[in-house]
Amino acid sequence: MADPAQPIHHHIIDIIRKKRDGHELNAPEIEFVVNAAARHSDPDATQPATEAQLAAWLMTVLLRGLTAAELHALTKAMRFSGEVFDPSPLGKFAIDKHSTGGVGDSTSFIVAPIAAAAGLSVPMISGRALGHTGGTLDKLDSIPGYRSNLSLAEMFRALEQNGAFIVSQTKALVPADRVLYALRDHTGTVESPYLICASIMSKKLAAGLNGLVLDVKTGSGAFLKSEEEGLYLASLMVRTGEASGTRTVAVLTDMNQPLGRFAGNWVEIWEAVDVLSGKRHPLCEDILQISLTLAGWMLHLGDKAPTPAAGYDLAQDLLTSGAALTKFKQMIAAQGGDAGVFDDPGAFHTPAATKTIFARSSGYLSAIDTEKVGWAVQRLGAGREKAAEPVDAYAGIEMHVKLGDHIEPGQPLITMFAADPERLAEPEALLYEAIAIADEPSTVPRLIYECVTVENADRFSIP
Amino acid sequence: MADPAQPIHHHIIDIIRKKRDGHELNAPEIEFVVNAAARHSDPDATQPATEAQLAAWLMTVLLRGLTAAELHALTKAMRFSGEVFDPSPLGKFAIDKHSTGGVGDSTSFIVAPIAAAAGLSVPMISGRALGHTGGTLDKLDSIPGYRSNLSLAEMFRALEQNGAFIVSQTKALVPADRVLYALRDHTGTVESPYLICASIMSKKLAAGLNGLVLDVKTGSGAFLKSEEEGLYLASLMVRTGEASGTRTVAVLTDMNQPLGRFAGNWVEIWEAVDVLSGKRHPLCEDILQISLTLAGWMLHLGDKAPTPAAGYDLAQDLLTSGAALTKFKQMIAAQGGDAGVFDDPGAFHTPAATKTIFARSSGYLSAIDTEKVGWAVQRLGAGREKAAEPVDAYAGIEMHVKLGDHIEPGQPLITMFAADPERLAEPEALLYEAIAIADEPSTVPRLIYECVTVENADRFSIP
Repeated sequence: MADPAQPIHHHIIDIIRKKRDGHELNAPEIEFVVNAAARHSDPDATQPATEAQLAAWLMTVLLRGLTAAELHALTKAMRFSGEVFDPSPLGKFAIDKHSTGGVGDSTSFIVAPIAAAAGLSVPMISGRALGHTGGTLDKLDSIPGYRSNLSLAEMFRALEQNGAFIVSQTKALVPADRVLYALRDHTGTVESPYLICASIMSKKLAAGLNGLVLDVKTGSGAFLKSEEEGLYLASLMVRTGEASGTRTVAVLTDMNQPLGRFAGNWVEIWEAVDVLSGKRHPLCEDILQISLTLAGWMLHLGDKAPTPAAGYDLAQDLLTSGAALTKFKQMIAAQGGDAGVFDDPGAFHTPAATKTIFARSSGYLSAIDTEKVGWAVQRLGAGREKAAEPVDAYAGIEMHVKLGDHIEPGQPLITMFAADPERLAEPEALLYEAIAIADEPSTVPRLIYECVTVENADRFSIP
Repeated sequence: MADPAQPIHHHIIDIIRKKRDGHELNAPEIEFVVNAAARHSDPDATQPATEAQLAAWLMTVLLRGLTAAELHALTKAMRFSGEVFDPSPLGKFAIDKHSTGGVGDSTSFIVAPIAAAAGLSVPMISGRALGHTGGTLDKLDSIPGYRSNLSLAEMFRALEQNGAFIVSQTKALVPADRVLYALRDHTGTVESPYLICASIMSKKLAAGLNGLVLDVKTGSGAFLKSEEEGLYLASLMVRTGEASGTRTVAVLTDMNQPLGRFAGNWVEIWEAVDVLSGKRHPLCEDILQISLTLAGWMLHLGDKAPTPAAGYDLAQDLLTSGAALTKFKQMIAAQGGDAGVFDDPGAFHTPAATKTIFARSSGYLSAIDTEKVGWAVQRLGAGREKAAEPVDAYAGIEMHVKLGDHIEPGQPLITMFAADPERLAEPEALLYEAIAIADEPSTVPRLIYECVTVENADRFSIP
């Protein structure tokens, strides 16, 4: 029974109905919802909203959208829903890189040490495998001894000593997002650019960043498949970040095929170490280009380079000199990881089961359903079917071909790695389904589509 | 994590996303949702959907609407989600009247005995106070001894012996609605004409009706305030009923002021007994007209009168002859009620606290916020703030004026009745707010706006 005497912004039903009917919510109303979500983490707290009410509200947001003011209020309320990390006492420019999720994307392990080697602070708070996409923390967990769950105090010390860390979210950091994310995942409210933006940006901003470079994936392996949707999300995130005082840039990059040579857990660490070591495997050219572009923007925003292009060159220098590899080993060791395995990463790769799939016809590799490839990697054991399941360090794939390649029958296409031969059958079927070979060569997608900055973000708005 | 191998109609998330994206659901998908809701009544059952998922789905329906096929499938799945009542072995035409909810509406107690006195079966399954509107069962409970919770077998016997009963829903009847209704009530998903239609019609059709006359309220005291919304709901219900083989008519009636002289619990029984006894209080003219119109349609649909107008006349005859009053007393007595209190209903009205509000200026009674009046009646004790709270038999109001009346300062407007003088303050403020007095007389709304039948229902569709 509604209470007519109660002020309208203090009752969740009124807030749901207001948004449902297409009206703009004010900041206190949005704070009320976020606070209700955050309190859900605490079983002892009085609950101002049920999960059903939060789910109904999320659906109104997905279907009605949010204004810029609403999105800013939502992101801010989520950001401050729990504890925050504050790197500012170090007096260095704090910057992070974040990807919207792809397949075979090991760029974090390359750009973080480059930026830290250049003298920036890189407080990187990362996630686990989600849907068909790999998880930075699951990849790092394949390094013996690596510990990702640092406290805020440990994070601060790691940043002070090494200039960078890669850790998991603490329980108290952005608790509202944990609740809302889990709800979205099972109520069909994941695919809202507004909710995606608020979820990503609240967590990034809670790390106290001065700058943020976003890698927005587009194509068959991205969550938002179309370039238009990717650009719109990019523009939302750039404007939300800048409105909060964080210099924010988004680079729209191609996810129509897995990045680099490998996708999985340890194999991606291996790949990153190869790139950091200057080993230029031909299939890793895309990873190198994207990493240098992202790192170039980080160095530019952090005032280490006058332009993004100059940042790109500086990033390349830090790679060539070995400074970035040294920094990466130092970061890993500081979090308990055995950096000795980086000396011969191929030797450390010991999957129990390996199988290669081969081309059945000749032609050109014309398309890859990269989401399907991502699901195959997850099912090989790199990801989990249920939350908190262990993942397999050696699970993954090696790509032998790229889009546009000429293919001969019998040519190896992809090699699978798993802990058990029984885990190969379903991924094998998925991989065969994912690959299209055509008679004629088709256009190979560009690697980098667009850089969205505060200057041009308005161009990509959907009215 | 979504399972790409699972058939699309067997996963609630896929059903939510399909509706969310504007696609039509098929009958098995809708049955899946309804079955998930019905199973929520059973704490031991495996739950194919959480409350959050059901709430998200309800919001997609509210915002996307339903096609005629979807609405029919939803109503049917809900109707058969539990046990059903079957009056057909009695060999009589079974008909009911249902109102969408108003203030001071005692017509059920008048039309049910009229129709039963004419030889029809009236299996009336009613509800309790909801929001600002009164509850038929709460009103009946003010009669000493009245028992509304009959089993299906007891209902059948009552119908066989008396031709009518007024009871509460059994737990096993339309269990899906109980779950969905409670969810809608607290997730801002009440005001969907599709969900209102499915909720009402599933329960009415589960009573095995051959005919149904709907009193769709419109105006300041109705749930759907505008005439257009009311007509649209009426057309949905008529078409849904007829598609299920039940002759269905909807009468759109005015709810811009409380009906009759009284609103509350016992006072409305008193009012109905007065009408049934032929006492024509001037303020009860509207109740009489609406009751005869609704009863006229019932008698016409049940083949007791060749036209609705002839049904109106027959209803009037059954009232004038005393047959309807006799039937009402018989119905009440059969359910344990002491019909002796009907001999002097005013003497039985013994509220502990009474207070009258008076006009503060002169002019014409130009508008009544009837929802606010309804809330005042509920707060006086006629309704509950929480489910299962007891209500007060004598709580309510007596109206002394009608829209259009000329008002002098100091003239009594409304008298309040409550069990405790402390309960008067908030309702008094609400009532003063609810009443508008203007210098010039304004148009008094019509009492009956429209009759919607299967022949004209298409005219009122919102495309």
